[in-house]
Amino acid sequence: MADVEPKGVVLLDVLMNTFGHRCRIALAEKGVEYEFRVENLRDKSPLLLKSNPVHKRIPVLIHDGKPVCESPIIVQYIDEAWPHRAPLLPADPYARAQARFWADFVDKKFNECGSRLCDLKGEEQAAAKEEFIGILKLLEGELGDKKYFGGDAFGFVDIVLVPSVSWFYSYENCAGFRMEEAAPKLVAWGKRCMERESVAKTLSDPHKVYEFVDRLRKRSGVE
Amino acid sequence: MADVEPKGVVLLDVLMNTFGHRCRIALAEKGVEYEFRVENLRDKSPLLLKSNPVHKRIPVLIHDGKPVCESPIIVQYIDEAWPHRAPLLPADPYARAQARFWADFVDKKFNECGSRLCDLKGEEQAAAKEEFIGILKLLEGELGDKKYFGGDAFGFVDIVLVPSVSWFYSYENCAGFRMEEAAPKLVAWGKRCMERESVAKTLSDPHKVYEFVDRLRKRSGVE
Repeated sequence: MADVEPKGVVLLDVLMNTFGHRCRIALAEKGVEYEFRVENLRDKSPLLLKSNPVHKRIPVLIHDGKPVCESPIIVQYIDEAWPHRAPLLPADPYARAQARFWADFVDKKFNECGSRLCDLKGEEQAAAKEEFIGILKLLEGELGDKKYFGGDAFGFVDIVLVPSVSWFYSYENCAGFRMEEAAPKLVAWGKRCMERESVAKTLSDPHKVYEFVDRLRKRSGVE
Repeated sequence: MADVEPKGVVLLDVLMNTFGHRCRIALAEKGVEYEFRVENLRDKSPLLLKSNPVHKRIPVLIHDGKPVCESPIIVQYIDEAWPHRAPLLPADPYARAQARFWADFVDKKFNECGSRLCDLKGEEQAAAKEEFIGILKLLEGELGDKKYFGGDAFGFVDIVLVPSVSWFYSYENCAGFRMEEAAPKLVAWGKRCMERESVAKTLSDPHKVYEFVDRLRKRSGVE
């Protein structure tokens, strides 16, 4: 199958990838059938290199032979290409802008700082932890008492953030704090999201994520 | 006027800011009247801090009291809030995804590497220049022989990239190369964009940009 020209909907990804999980959750919410092609990141397929010549990275969604890259862009594409079921972005322009703002915040701040939590140690890690807890507070402020970030409907911001719930256990263990104490609303939101089949069947096992993180930390001499 | 609660459409910005210029060009294309409030970045107004409590930075568009932040999100908001004139994003979902991809590329690659061109010297700058020329080639590949990035219609990618045309002169002078040789199609595209009133009345004078860049380089010891 490796490089057969793709038909229909194909996702190029690896199994444990929060960015790819966004796409898989969006496709599941929309009820779109697709072929999942596992990439070997040490020997990327010619199809991946041809489909994403700029960044050469996963995930890539290929729809009728046309590639879409970068996960927030893929999720918005999925919403617009299959508009008749489960809208992921709201209809109102201001609400759409707010959803885009918080999705952007997840990548620029939450994920960036979350990576540092796991990559650092000592004082640098303590500073990253303080920053991360501030980021959690901002996310909790936006979530408030809503069911999902978009209100009653599971949507764009939820999809962009929820794959990171699998990383909460690693954040706790790397940086020595409890997510339940630092961000109880966010933890409860994560549990609500996990009640959705689209999320439950996609997310990585938190212990497997931590095994992976721990291996990387040992290899880079952080532990 | 400083902190009177804003009515209608207000843009908080400074005069010479490529990110703010995107918003001003989009508003001009849509024919939206707005109040321009100049911020003092050494003493940010309470309105800016209240409107963008997360990033605390310009530009911010305030529409009927509701703030929108981050320039690519502001431009998409402008397109969706005033949909009946001069569409900035195409209607087709795939074309929209492509426009978002290249707009994202401008921020992640072009602007990031462009800054390094001006901040560095010696071997590091030479490496950044080689990288930047590769980025220019990718942009030229996407532009091809089209009038604008979106085809015949001036749109999202053009708006996101065109304020940087004012920086071409600085890139050339800081890193010692000619944009006309490295990216002739892009230079010609910039001239075509400058024929539009929305762009011509907004962009900074390239010599003033270079004066600013040169002052920063001297202050940080690069020159």
